Amino acid sequence: MKKIVSILILSILLAACGNTETTNLKTVSSIEELNTAVKDAKPGDEIVLANGIYKDLEIKFTGEGTADNPIILKAETAGKVFIEGVSSLEISGNYLEVSGLFFRNGHSPKTNVIAFRTSEKQVANHSKVTNCVVLDFNNLERDQDNLWVQFYGKHNELSNCYIAGKTNGGPTVRVDLKGNQSIRNYHNIINNHFGPRPRKGGARGETIQLGSSFTSMSPSNTTIANNLFEECNGEVEIISSKTNFNLIKNNVFYKSEGSVVTRHGNYVTIDGNYFIGDGVNEQYGGIRIINTGHWVINNLFYKLKGKNFRSPLAVMNGIPKSPLNRYNQVTDIVVAYNTYVDSSSPWQFGVGTNIAQADVLPKSEIRSARPLRTEVVNNVIYNSVGDANPIIEYDKADGVTFASNIIHNNGVEIANSHGLISKELNLTDIGTNLSVPISGFSDLEVYKGFDFETITEDLLGNSRSKSDQIGAILNSENIKLDILDKTKYGADWYSNEVETKEAKTHTVSNASELITKLQEAESGDVIDVNDGIFKISESLIIDKTITIQSKGNSEIIYEGVANTPAFSLNPYGKLTVKNIKLKGNGSNYAFASLKENMSNHFGLEVLDSEISNFNYALRVYKQAYSEEITFKNTSISNCENGIELSEETNDRGDYNTEYLTINNCYFDNVKQNVVDYYRGGYDESTIGGNLLVTNSTFINCGAKEQNKRLLNHNGIVNVNITKNTFKNNPVQFVSILWGAKNNVESENTVTNSGQIKTEENLVMTLMY
Amino acid sequence: MKKIVSILILSILLAACGNTETTNLKTVSSIEELNTAVKDAKPGDEIVLANGIYKDLEIKFTGEGTADNPIILKAETAGKVFIEGVSSLEISGNYLEVSGLFFRNGHSPKTNVIAFRTSEKQVANHSKVTNCVVLDFNNLERDQDNLWVQFYGKHNELSNCYIAGKTNGGPTVRVDLKGNQSIRNYHNIINNHFGPRPRKGGARGETIQLGSSFTSMSPSNTTIANNLFEECNGEVEIISSKTNFNLIKNNVFYKSEGSVVTRHGNYVTIDGNYFIGDGVNEQYGGIRIINTGHWVINNLFYKLKGKNFRSPLAVMNGIPKSPLNRYNQVTDIVVAYNTYVDSSSPWQFGVGTNIAQADVLPKSEIRSARPLRTEVVNNVIYNSVGDANPIIEYDKADGVTFASNIIHNNGVEIANSHGLISKELNLTDIGTNLSVPISGFSDLEVYKGFDFETITEDLLGNSRSKSDQIGAILNSENIKLDILDKTKYGADWYSNEVETKEAKTHTVSNASELITKLQEAESGDVIDVNDGIFKISESLIIDKTITIQSKGNSEIIYEGVANTPAFSLNPYGKLTVKNIKLKGNGSNYAFASLKENMSNHFGLEVLDSEISNFNYALRVYKQAYSEEITFKNTSISNCENGIELSEETNDRGDYNTEYLTINNCYFDNVKQNVVDYYRGGYDESTIGGNLLVTNSTFINCGAKEQNKRLLNHNGIVNVNITKNTFKNNPVQFVSILWGAKNNVESENTVTNSGQIKTEENLVMTLMY
Repeated sequence: MKKIVSILILSILLAACGNTETTNLKTVSSIEELNTAVKDAKPGDEIVLANGIYKDLEIKFTGEGTADNPIILKAETAGKVFIEGVSSLEISGNYLEVSGLFFRNGHSPKTNVIAFRTSEKQVANHSKVTNCVVLDFNNLERDQDNLWVQFYGKHNELSNCYIAGKTNGGPTVRVDLKGNQSIRNYHNIINNHFGPRPRKGGARGETIQLGSSFTSMSPSNTTIANNLFEECNGEVEIISSKTNFNLIKNNVFYKSEGSVVTRHGNYVTIDGNYFIGDGVNEQYGGIRIINTGHWVINNLFYKLKGKNFRSPLAVMNGIPKSPLNRYNQVTDIVVAYNTYVDSSSPWQFGVGTNIAQADVLPKSEIRSARPLRTEVVNNVIYNSVGDANPIIEYDKADGVTFASNIIHNNGVEIANSHGLISKELNLTDIGTNLSVPISGFSDLEVYKGFDFETITEDLLGNSRSKSDQIGAILNSENIKLDILDKTKYGADWYSNEVETKEAKTHTVSNASELITKLQEAESGDVIDVNDGIFKISESLIIDKTITIQSKGNSEIIYEGVANTPAFSLNPYGKLTVKNIKLKGNGSNYAFASLKENMSNHFGLEVLDSEISNFNYALRVYKQAYSEEITFKNTSISNCENGIELSEETNDRGDYNTEYLTINNCYFDNVKQNVVDYYRGGYDESTIGGNLLVTNSTFINCGAKEQNKRLLNHNGIVNVNITKNTFKNNPVQFVSILWGAKNNVESENTVTNSGQIKTEENLVMTLMY
Repeated sequence: MKKIVSILILSILLAACGNTETTNLKTVSSIEELNTAVKDAKPGDEIVLANGIYKDLEIKFTGEGTADNPIILKAETAGKVFIEGVSSLEISGNYLEVSGLFFRNGHSPKTNVIAFRTSEKQVANHSKVTNCVVLDFNNLERDQDNLWVQFYGKHNELSNCYIAGKTNGGPTVRVDLKGNQSIRNYHNIINNHFGPRPRKGGARGETIQLGSSFTSMSPSNTTIANNLFEECNGEVEIISSKTNFNLIKNNVFYKSEGSVVTRHGNYVTIDGNYFIGDGVNEQYGGIRIINTGHWVINNLFYKLKGKNFRSPLAVMNGIPKSPLNRYNQVTDIVVAYNTYVDSSSPWQFGVGTNIAQADVLPKSEIRSARPLRTEVVNNVIYNSVGDANPIIEYDKADGVTFASNIIHNNGVEIANSHGLISKELNLTDIGTNLSVPISGFSDLEVYKGFDFETITEDLLGNSRSKSDQIGAILNSENIKLDILDKTKYGADWYSNEVETKEAKTHTVSNASELITKLQEAESGDVIDVNDGIFKISESLIIDKTITIQSKGNSEIIYEGVANTPAFSLNPYGKLTVKNIKLKGNGSNYAFASLKENMSNHFGLEVLDSEISNFNYALRVYKQAYSEEITFKNTSISNCENGIELSEETNDRGDYNTEYLTINNCYFDNVKQNVVDYYRGGYDESTIGGNLLVTNSTFINCGAKEQNKRLLNHNGIVNVNITKNTFKNNPVQFVSILWGAKNNVESENTVTNSGQIKTEENLVMTLMY
């Protein structure tokens, strides 16, 4: 017997070792060495990129590893291999692994930075990119779309990476399904940290897109799990699922201005995710549902204030017999076992209904098909401040079954309850600053729908088999979540936590000092301009966060040539100007972006200042974008043009700033483009552009405005014109508001300046 | 040791028997007894329906059986329990089984005859209907659509049934997927014999429909395997697959006027089927492809002459961004390892392209999107008579990869070969009158596409692993197929083989004998009418196949009241009239169908006869249908109306006869509706209606025709008007032909009768 056991153990050991080949480690430090190493690589080999900065490196990593012996391409020290300039990574073959690389200070020459293929039919399978960072690796122009990670093939993985800062068009990550080589792919996108993706100003700013409408019939089976999405604000969709059978599980969506959207495709499971807002920002969304068969289970929605498209649960109306790329009807959806804490009107149905716009839209654009065979059951809602309308129906939710849903509403009566059971509940601290109701409703009968027996666990992975109850989290002692600990996500060698440092103040007394100190200053610094006149003949370059301020009697006179700006707003240039008198020569500009190479966003805040005698007060070129532009307590006078943000006319829904705010300003003798802010293209899901004009005075402006409108904001979705005075402006309209969208005016005084008009529907180019 | 073994054996026996409960057998013979038995049934129970005829029996069979112990409802003797009258069967619960029933002489009061549910949410799972027959169980009106077998729930089975004779609208069998209770259903439709389904005259005549466009995004996973489809001629689609992941395997499509069509949905596998034609009939089709990801592998196409929509392989053009219920683009299709023997132009691409009709159709109807990423590889074509055009491109096949395809073309040069390799091949007799090339190309390299390693077997189930070669059948000795042995399919107690019997001839000398003998005659008999005058005052009922003929000098004078016919064409009434002079009173009809209750088709052939003095020569009412109507060597004169087949104006593509033939006839003084044959509704896949008018003379006809056309055939797809004489007909047009369809005229002599005009496009109501 002993002998038999010995032989057995030996056999097991042999079997375990049998496939392991000797690792062949080869260090390379040039593209030529790398290519040779790749060419020669055998299963089990490791190619090591020596530490250093590599410029313009186009890596093609191909090979045939095995499950037990992948071929590995890795950094000598993870995080110490910098890929810069015009660089990219392409992978094809089987069982390949890349780790430890840092893509920064550059952009890709291709349509992607990292691709899991090297040609149309040469794709990667069973391969992964892990422990890497891609930071600000933006194309030079915003309209030049690309992807940073593009999946092809099957069974590939993006894991433990930190990816942030994409400002140009195109999703950050896309799974591509064209061709049988890339369906049923079972890719894993796991344990990553998707860091801030700034607002993009229009569509095509998703963080992850799974397929496209043209492959929306294909089975994808992609898993997105255990990732942290932090401030992923690119557009209304953080994850845009456009294929079938995907799993979105246990992710944390933290202060991200968007939603998880089942845009195309069907049967996606969104299970056990955290959607965390701040109770204030109305841009943080939840889950928006289109199409068939999705399951939304075990999710926690926390302090979300998003409305309509961005509501915690937005169930859309579909287009009857929808075209492939539009909105199929919602059917066979399960929304069960979710918990909503202090989230306004968490359930919204018939989102996107546009029956009223039948006059201006073709029939194939009218979303009139209400959800069918949908179950909203076993959910818990907790409102510290009662919400009279937890359920909003833009169109009737008559195809929805509501059952076994409970609400703590602080005594406030509910208008449209659909059977919501009111009950006093208590909150339990579960860590990570989350307090959630997990007890007090175990007596409520759990609704059992078809296949509900497959919902075996709660949000925390605890089994529902013994003591099931409604809501995302089963009652349990001592829950201590740590889901915002960033070390749990992304590359182990990289952190995006920035130490706050004291802003340094530089004082300048003449023009030459101003120029020098501006160059020397670090991002975040302040330049105090002493009293006096500063004559500048060349543009001041703003390429970092900087404040330029005076005590009140400093005047900057810009003498630069025509059509150049006093302040040239470069990528990363975030300028605050305070208490400055700024004068031009009539032909040059006060502020302008670059015309080309705006590879990252700028910012502008003008406070307590006077701007006069310019061709343009602000000129933002087509390819430039600022998240916010603010003029406050500032006068703009005797300028040919005012605030110009209308060059992005691609009519694909893009625009040049998310928020344009004009507060307590004074416009006098600005001849045209007084305020010109444009968004073109009919696209119901680009829901941005925000113009606030308040407490301001416009006198004698718009004389040369060709379209006879003083304030131009064509296509901007959110417009508020309030408490202003318009006097003696030779125009026909102060503004034409878009009634169907969020355009409003109030308390304005209009004298000899035409009128403010509202047109319900705006005829626009269809984007689709 | 011995003891241990004994215990082990005992344990196994106990385990095996452990779940078996004692069978409780209960015989019932009334609905009340049945209902009680059903109510009381426990796992393992058998409810036995006593032999006999049951009228108006609405069975609701519900229960909870188990995998090991289903609840069974069965005939006392299979085939001796007749369900007649207004009857139906509904099943819900788990593990239920029905067998041995014969549905005949009746119809269902519901929208289905057999349903795998009893209410919307009470569906059947793991249940089956087996060894049953459903024969001619038609609704009373043709337009009253229903289904005969409707699947709901999951894991159900229709097996070893014989189902034939559906003439009313609606697919014979449908799998329904609405609701999560019915997706991923893994139903099995196996070993059935789908007997003749007559031509229906329009759409909605499929034999099997898997889902609908509205559930075309759902995973169905239905298997249709090992069935015989015999003369399933209902419409252009025999199987209409409208969901995903179905498997259509090892079926025999024998002389069936239609195709297997992937109408909606994606990723259907059509593997190892036999499509057998006769080398003549152009209605026998193969496989028509729409949408994404289908695999057409290992199929044999034998002597098929279908064209265009019905070609052996028809790959359609799609509509760009198609609406849900129209035509998605074809992408990612694999057509591999098939064999085509003596099948004309087996590969046709861009089928359905209608770019030329852009003027009369909306953009959302224009099929301009060509196939993408499609592979046609490893196929064998054998043509005894060379075919200059084995590949037809209605639109460019530039998205198709052709590789490793071989052709034996009897020396005929190929116009558009796409790399087809010409080679002399030999045929091997494989049984069932099939001779197929299986050798002579083992040296040709097999193309390996993505996932081709999953094609592990050939048509006969032989492994491809060792000696793979192109084509459906691997080279092997002594293949002896017996796939048309009908005893292998359907119910074991039923055969549709009919003994041919000698037709009996009855001779009649007077009217009263004619009436009596007509009643007494059996279907198929002949009535010889002696010379003389036969005055008839009431309609002769034709409700079987009958021939009425004379030697030449018999005259039937019909004296019946106005608007009644001399010959009343009832369901099943197939009349041949030969050498008869038929006279009316000016207000009654020569031939007419019933106006109501035409629960089955009629037929009419009029040869060598004279018809005069009627209100209508033939009046076919809205709900009546004949596969063929022929007038030959016959005169129709002095009638108010001629041949009237235009009452089916539902504009859903339906019409009243498939073939209307007028050959060598003489029309004189027929005032209106001389020939009036109508099909309404734009529907590219209703490709029927056939009018042949040849060698005939029309004189002095159409005086009262309101639309000033002599021959009306609005919407009929195939029209041929040739070698006729039209003289002194007071109309504007002899005919207006539909140029875009198959409407032609030739060698006609038109004198003082207006003109024959061709209009390329016909404006019609859109059906979708």
